[in-house]
Amino acid sequence: MEGMLGRLVIDNVRPRTLTGRYPAKAAVGDRVPVTAWIHREGHDLLAGRVWWRPCTPDAAWRHAPLADDGNDEWSAWFEPTVVGRHEFAVEAWADHFATWAHDLRIRADAGDDLELELEEGARLIARLAARLPPAAAAPTAPVADAGAPTRHERLAEAAATLRRTSCAEPVRVAAGLDPDVAAILRDVPDPFDRVLTEPQPLWVDRPRARRSAWYELFPRSEGGLQGARKRLPAVADMGFDVVYLPPVHPIGTTARKGPGNTLVAGPDDPGSPWAIGAAAGGHLAIEPRLGTLDDFDDFVADAAANGLEVALDYALQCSPDHPWVHEHPEWFHRRPDGSIRYAENPPKKYQDIYPLNFWPQQPGGEPDDDAQAALWSACKGILDHWIGHGVRIFRVDNPHTKPMAFWEWLLPAVQRDHPDVLFLAEAFTTPKVMAKLAEVGFTQSYSYFTWRHSNEELTAYLDELAHGPTVDYLRPNFWPNTPDILGGVLRHGSRAAFQLRLVLAALLAPNWGLYSGYELCENEPASPENEEYAHSEKYEIKHRDWDDPASLAPFITTVNGVRRAHPAFAELRSIRFHHADNGALLVFSKTDAHGADPVLVVVNLDPDGAQAATLGLDLAALGLPWDADLRVRDELTGDEFTWHGPNPWVRLDPAVQVAHVLAIEPA
Amino acid sequence: MEGMLGRLVIDNVRPRTLTGRYPAKAAVGDRVPVTAWIHREGHDLLAGRVWWRPCTPDAAWRHAPLADDGNDEWSAWFEPTVVGRHEFAVEAWADHFATWAHDLRIRADAGDDLELELEEGARLIARLAARLPPAAAAPTAPVADAGAPTRHERLAEAAATLRRTSCAEPVRVAAGLDPDVAAILRDVPDPFDRVLTEPQPLWVDRPRARRSAWYELFPRSEGGLQGARKRLPAVADMGFDVVYLPPVHPIGTTARKGPGNTLVAGPDDPGSPWAIGAAAGGHLAIEPRLGTLDDFDDFVADAAANGLEVALDYALQCSPDHPWVHEHPEWFHRRPDGSIRYAENPPKKYQDIYPLNFWPQQPGGEPDDDAQAALWSACKGILDHWIGHGVRIFRVDNPHTKPMAFWEWLLPAVQRDHPDVLFLAEAFTTPKVMAKLAEVGFTQSYSYFTWRHSNEELTAYLDELAHGPTVDYLRPNFWPNTPDILGGVLRHGSRAAFQLRLVLAALLAPNWGLYSGYELCENEPASPENEEYAHSEKYEIKHRDWDDPASLAPFITTVNGVRRAHPAFAELRSIRFHHADNGALLVFSKTDAHGADPVLVVVNLDPDGAQAATLGLDLAALGLPWDADLRVRDELTGDEFTWHGPNPWVRLDPAVQVAHVLAIEPA
Repeated sequence: MEGMLGRLVIDNVRPRTLTGRYPAKAAVGDRVPVTAWIHREGHDLLAGRVWWRPCTPDAAWRHAPLADDGNDEWSAWFEPTVVGRHEFAVEAWADHFATWAHDLRIRADAGDDLELELEEGARLIARLAARLPPAAAAPTAPVADAGAPTRHERLAEAAATLRRTSCAEPVRVAAGLDPDVAAILRDVPDPFDRVLTEPQPLWVDRPRARRSAWYELFPRSEGGLQGARKRLPAVADMGFDVVYLPPVHPIGTTARKGPGNTLVAGPDDPGSPWAIGAAAGGHLAIEPRLGTLDDFDDFVADAAANGLEVALDYALQCSPDHPWVHEHPEWFHRRPDGSIRYAENPPKKYQDIYPLNFWPQQPGGEPDDDAQAALWSACKGILDHWIGHGVRIFRVDNPHTKPMAFWEWLLPAVQRDHPDVLFLAEAFTTPKVMAKLAEVGFTQSYSYFTWRHSNEELTAYLDELAHGPTVDYLRPNFWPNTPDILGGVLRHGSRAAFQLRLVLAALLAPNWGLYSGYELCENEPASPENEEYAHSEKYEIKHRDWDDPASLAPFITTVNGVRRAHPAFAELRSIRFHHADNGALLVFSKTDAHGADPVLVVVNLDPDGAQAATLGLDLAALGLPWDADLRVRDELTGDEFTWHGPNPWVRLDPAVQVAHVLAIEPA
Repeated sequence: MEGMLGRLVIDNVRPRTLTGRYPAKAAVGDRVPVTAWIHREGHDLLAGRVWWRPCTPDAAWRHAPLADDGNDEWSAWFEPTVVGRHEFAVEAWADHFATWAHDLRIRADAGDDLELELEEGARLIARLAARLPPAAAAPTAPVADAGAPTRHERLAEAAATLRRTSCAEPVRVAAGLDPDVAAILRDVPDPFDRVLTEPQPLWVDRPRARRSAWYELFPRSEGGLQGARKRLPAVADMGFDVVYLPPVHPIGTTARKGPGNTLVAGPDDPGSPWAIGAAAGGHLAIEPRLGTLDDFDDFVADAAANGLEVALDYALQCSPDHPWVHEHPEWFHRRPDGSIRYAENPPKKYQDIYPLNFWPQQPGGEPDDDAQAALWSACKGILDHWIGHGVRIFRVDNPHTKPMAFWEWLLPAVQRDHPDVLFLAEAFTTPKVMAKLAEVGFTQSYSYFTWRHSNEELTAYLDELAHGPTVDYLRPNFWPNTPDILGGVLRHGSRAAFQLRLVLAALLAPNWGLYSGYELCENEPASPENEEYAHSEKYEIKHRDWDDPASLAPFITTVNGVRRAHPAFAELRSIRFHHADNGALLVFSKTDAHGADPVLVVVNLDPDGAQAATLGLDLAALGLPWDADLRVRDELTGDEFTWHGPNPWVRLDPAVQVAHVLAIEPA
C-alpha cells in the first residue's frame, strides 16, 4: 500500500533548473536560499532542515534548519565555502514533541485533566531519546559541561518528572516545557513520520561568477597585445574585474571582410577576428599582427598584476584557411562535390566562415561517431590549451548556433578538472534557448538589457530575471553596448545617455560589461537601419584619445566603486521597484542577502531633459518602518540629506546628474 | 559523448502536474491541448507531432501534428474517446527536406548556381524514401489510387528529375517543390535528428468530470430517502446533473450535537450526519430515520430516471458508537490508558467524533503495517459497497485531514476497476494542499470561490485557475453556499445577491453546485462572527416551502439551461476578462475549445444598486474583428440588440436583472 509519497509532502524544492536534471547555481559567499512546500494532514507542528555537502569523497553532510514562512512554504539557507558540484536535500518531519508541548500548555491553561497527557509526553521523550544522534552529529544541541548531566540523563529526568505523581502538577508540566529538553529533541525526527527528498544538484562557482564588471577591448587598436598591456592600469582604475578579448587567433585571408563588413579587403585591412584560422594556425595560435604566445602570457600576467582576469573569446568556427579545413574536412558540412559549405542563411552568404558540423555524417547520412568524438575533443582541447595559459574565463560566441548537447557535454567536462572556469554565453536568441544554455551549464548569460530602455521594459525584464524561475540558474550580464550593438538612446546619444545606460547596467545586474569606446561616448551608428557601429572595430583599427578630458572614465570608476562598496549590488533576487509619479524616473532598491545594506537608485531615463517626481517608496522592502525618517547619502556625489517618510520629491537634470545612488539608513 | 539531450531540445511538455509524477487530467470530449518548448541550433525548419493512446493492451498509438506557435512554443491537440489512463509523448525532428525546399526556392529566385543543391535534394529524398513508414501507419499521406504511382515511385521520380540535366532548371526545381512530395515526406523524420520524449501520463474521465451542476440536499428535511425521491423531478427541472447527499449512515448518540452545534441534544434531535456510526451500523448502513438500503436503491434509481446522478458523502471518521471502535480499536488514536482520543484542536474538543489513525502504531511507536493494510482496505471497502449500489460520484469530506499518501493509493485503486468513478475534494485548506489533492487524483475540487467576492478577487482567482499551472489537473467546483458557509453578500442578502452569486458560480466555472435552500434565499447567519447558517440543517430538520412563488428555481432552470446550450461554458481555459470603467460590473467571455461559440457575461456585483459602465471588449479574444458590429442576444431574457464596436454602454439594475449573458455573433 505504498505509493510514492511518505507521511509528509515535500514539493517544489528550490533552487532548481527548469527540468531539475542539471545543477542550479550558487557561488562561494552566496547565501543559497533553499525553499520547499511542506505539508501534512492534521494539526501537528512540522519541522525540517536542509542537508548539503560538496560532492567530494570526504565531505560531510551539514544541515541548517528550515523556517516556516507560512502558507506551507519553508525556507533555509546555507553558505557554500568551496567551488564545485554540491548536493542538497530537504528533510521534514512531524514534530510530535513540540506539538505535545504546545498542546500541553493550552490544556494546562484550560484546566484539563492532564494525567494521560503527561504519561504520553513521558513515553514520547523515551521513544525519541532512543534516537538521539551522537552529540557530534547534533551541533545545535547544547554542549554538555564536564560533570553536567548528559543529554540522555536530561531526558530521562524530564520523563521521570512528568510521571512523578508526588509532584505538584505545575512542576510536572514545567518539566515537559523545559526549553533544554526542547533543544535536545529539536533535531530528533521520528523516523516514521519523516521524509527526506532525493538530493538535488547545485554547482558552486567562485565569487567572480556572481559579481563581475567586464571591459572588452580589441588589442588590434592598441598596437597588439604588448600595446594593450599598457591599457590595463586604466582598465583596472575604472574598477573592472575582467578584461575580455575578442579572438586573438590568426585571421583568414580568403574572402576577408573589409571595413564596414564589405566584401573587399585591402592588404592592410585586419579582417574580422571571428574569421579564425590562417597559415599561422588556428584556435591555438596568436594572430601575428597582435604578437606571440609569449606576448599573450605577458598580457595575462600583467592583467593579474592589475587585479584583472582575462576572458578569452571562444568562437567555434573557421575561416577557409583554418588548418582543420584540410586536416579534418569531415568536421565540416560537405557538399556533393566534396567542397565545404560556407555559412549562409539564404539568400545571405558568409564566404569567410565555415561552420563546424557537430554531428558529422557518414556518406549515407548515418552518424560518424569517431569524427564526432574527435571534433568535440578538439574543441575541448582549445579550452584546455588556453586554460594552460592562465585563462579561466571564456566568453562563448553564439553558443545557440551549436548543439545544446555539445555544451551539455563540454562545460561539465571542463569544470570537472577546472571548477574555477567560467563561461559567458553570448546567445542573443530566444528566451527559451537562452535559459536552456544557462541550464546546461553556462555561468553567465548576455541578456536583453541592451534592448530594454523604457521604464516598463526594464521593470518587467528585471522582475522576470530576479523573481522568475530562471533566477536559480541564469545569471544575466548587462551590456549597454557591444561591438555589434549600438542601441536606443546611445545612437547619436549625449554624454548623459551614456551615463544613464551605464548606471542601469552596472547597478541593476550583479554582472555587467562595457565595450571600449563607450567611455568616449562613441555614438555613430552604421546606418539608420543597422544597429552596428559606423567604422566598426570588427573590421578596422580604431584610434582613440584615451586622455580626452570628456572621458567617462572617472564616472565609471565611481560607479564600479559604489558596486564594490555595497554588497547589495551583488544581489539580483532582492531588487524591488518603487513608484514614481513620473515614469521618466526609474526607482529601484536592493539589499544584501541578509536584508541589510539598503540602497536606492533613481535614474532619469530621459537623457535630454530634467525630470522630477514624488516617489512612493516601499520602505518595508528595505527593512525600514513604512514612514521612517531617512538619512540618505548620494554615493555618486557625496551629498547627504534627510527624507521624512516614503514620499520624497526628486529632480534629476541630466546635464548635472543622471542618477542618485543612495545609501539609506534610519535618521 | 552522449549526455541527456539528443539533437533537439523538447522541454515543458504539458499537460502535466506539478511534479509530473501523476496523470494530468482530461475528459472524453475534451480537446486536450498539448504544448511543448522545442528548439534546435541553426536555421533548419522543425516539425513534430504528439503521439497518444489509452493504456490498454490493444490500443494503437495515434498522432497529431504539432504547430509552431512562435517563440519556440509548439502545440497540438487530440480528443480522447474512452475513459481511463492514457499516455502521450512529443516527437520532434529537423525537417531537412522542408528546409532544403525552402532554401531552394530562395536560391532559385536569387539566381544561384543550383546544380549541387539539386543533387543534395535528390540524395535527401532517396535517404528519406528508405524510411517511409508503411502506408497504413502514415494516414496523412495521400492515398494512392489503384494504378497510380506508389509513394516510393513518386519519390524516385522526383529524385530523378532533380538530377536530369537534360531538363530545364525550372522543371527540376519544380520537382523538388512538388507539394505531393512534401506531403509524402512530411511525417518522415530523419532518425538521427529526431527526439521523442518519454510518455507522460494522462487520466481521461467521463464528460461529467468536466461539466456538472450539483444540488446538495439533506434527506432528513424531506422525510427521509423516500420523501427526498419526491424532490428529484424538481431538482432535475432546475437543470442539475448531480444530487449530492450528506452522509446517510447511522448517526452516533454519544455526545450527539444539538441544534446550533450545542453540546446537548434532545431525544428528537437528529444529530450531525458526519458523526457516523451507531448500533444500526457504520459506513455501510443507512440511518434508520432516513430509511433502508432498499430506500437508498430506490432513490438512486429514481435519480437516474430523472437524469440525475447521486453523489454520496465519503467522510472517514467515526462516532464513538461506530462498530469499528470496538472491532478495531487499533484503527484509532489510543491514549496511554487504552481509551480512544476524540477529535480536538486544543482547546477545542469534538467528543462526538473519533478520527481514524491512518498510520496505526505498535506499542513502541513502530508502524503496524497489518493494521494499516486492514484499515485502508476497509476504507476502500466503503466505496466498493456504495459503488455496488449504483453510486459513481463521491464528495469526499475534509480529505486534507487524511494522509496524502492514502489518497494517492486509494483513488487509482478504485478507478482501476471503476474508471467512471469521480471524486470531489471538499478541502477548504491551503492552496498547495488543495492542488496536491488534485494532483494525486481528485477529479474535482471545492474552491475559494465561496470567499471571492470583489472584481479584483474574482479576476485574480479565475486567472490563477484558468491560466496557472494547475489548470492541467485541478478542476474547480464553484459553490456560492454550503451547509457550512453563508458568506459575503448572501448574509442577510437580497434576492439579487443570491442571483448574482449563482450566475457567477454557474458561468465562471464548468462545475458548480448549490446547497438547497439557496433558491429560497435563506440568508440568516448563525451570528455576526460565524460564517455558518442560523438553525443549521446539520443539526436539525428544516421545513421549507418549495412552492414559494419567490423561489429562484425558474431562474436556476434558465441559468443551467444557458450552460447546457453553450459549450463555451464547459471551458475554463478560454475565460478572458474585459474592461469596464466601473468595477461594479464584472465582464468576462468564454469560447468553446475550438474558439467558437463566443459568450459574454456582464454581472452587476452590487446587489443593492443599479450600475452602469462603458465596456472595453477585447473582441479579438472572441475571434472577432476588434471593431466588429455585433448581434447580441441575452440568453436570460431573450432580448436581442446590436452593438457597434468594442465599447458598448451597459446598465444593470439588480431589481430587474443582475446580469447579461450574451451570445454574440458578427452583425
